[in-house]
Amino acid sequence: MITLHHCVSARSFRPLWLLEELGLPYELRMWPFPPRAVARHYLEENPLGTVPLLVDGHVRLTESAAICQYLAARHSPGELDVTVDEAHFGAYLNWLHMSDATLTFPQTLVLRYRHFEIGERLQPQVAEDYERWFLARLRAVESTLATADFLCAMRFTAADVAVGYALLLAEHLGLAEQFTPRIQAYWSRLQDRPAFQRAIARQLQAAHEQAVPLTPAPDIRP
Amino acid sequence: MITLHHCVSARSFRPLWLLEELGLPYELRMWPFPPRAVARHYLEENPLGTVPLLVDGHVRLTESAAICQYLAARHSPGELDVTVDEAHFGAYLNWLHMSDATLTFPQTLVLRYRHFEIGERLQPQVAEDYERWFLARLRAVESTLATADFLCAMRFTAADVAVGYALLLAEHLGLAEQFTPRIQAYWSRLQDRPAFQRAIARQLQAAHEQAVPLTPAPDIRP
Repeated sequence: MITLHHCVSARSFRPLWLLEELGLPYELRMWPFPPRAVARHYLEENPLGTVPLLVDGHVRLTESAAICQYLAARHSPGELDVTVDEAHFGAYLNWLHMSDATLTFPQTLVLRYRHFEIGERLQPQVAEDYERWFLARLRAVESTLATADFLCAMRFTAADVAVGYALLLAEHLGLAEQFTPRIQAYWSRLQDRPAFQRAIARQLQAAHEQAVPLTPAPDIRP
Repeated sequence: MITLHHCVSARSFRPLWLLEELGLPYELRMWPFPPRAVARHYLEENPLGTVPLLVDGHVRLTESAAICQYLAARHSPGELDVTVDEAHFGAYLNWLHMSDATLTFPQTLVLRYRHFEIGERLQPQVAEDYERWFLARLRAVESTLATADFLCAMRFTAADVAVGYALLLAEHLGLAEQFTPRIQAYWSRLQDRPAFQRAIARQLQAAHEQAVPLTPAPDIRP
């Protein structure tokens, strides 16, 4: 049985959504955000204190885009995964890596220095620098969608899940107003997927059942 | 023929090093750093303005860790690459993603806000926040090396190249003084590799031949 450690709307939403796309059984373990500050015993599960943590037998993974690739490769080769011998294998990898390193990390700076820090530790300049940085990199998504409904391989893949989470985070941060019509339409298509909606419902239900708050603790350090 | 667009010591050092490990022929195209500010015609090659850009026939990749995985999977399956059916496949993916999203991006904040910005745009607090953030995440490398010489699969793989670049960047930023003895020993092992040394020599030679400066332009925005 796969166990996914998750905080509402955190990067761990990527593997949650992908698990729903795959239809695999899994246990969803909810934590208040950020666990390393407000649920110190989480460090016994993952010493880094980060989510996601996916446990699959002896395999323990902490990088959300890596988990997407891992699950898709093992459970959906040639469908949600793009295999090594496919022409779009390189593009698939590029999108998976870009989803977090290039499209999510800059947004965590907006989150931290515009919303989470307190008083003098707020850094409007840094938040603005990386809002602009994120939107500039998003042009790669825009240009790809000019000729395709999904990012690579002419089909929905784990790369769309990984990049889709970056769009979800952008919406939470109020950056989605700056999406182009094409990116907005793509984002709507992703949200229309039954597995996306099941993932949203599942995290809310699990948070309720496990009595985990839906909003972050104040004064957190993402 | 593979073409790699590269700036001295930038993330594009990852694919450069891996190409040397693989012994593949390639063309190395050097650019001053950062190209989008000081060599605007680079935008014709890569509209994002970032390095690396790897061109391999119709394949165009921009994410350094993705390029490592791509090249290793295509040219060195089961050796520098860890294949889907190997037990360490998940760990391999996790390190590849962690190398950039978790171990490199935080350092770019130190680079930018401690070294590259000017005057009031320097942000000592942010540089310090992400120096600490980087060193905390590096504990994952430390604990893995307690029982192994390399990160996964009991052998040197593309994941070591990808994480090795994060250590190279840390050295450039003066953060290597804070490496534990185990990480320092690992970093020394990586630098002892003939392919690492060939990559260092190759970038210096190419920079000389192509008349590209070895140091970044002042007032840059990484």
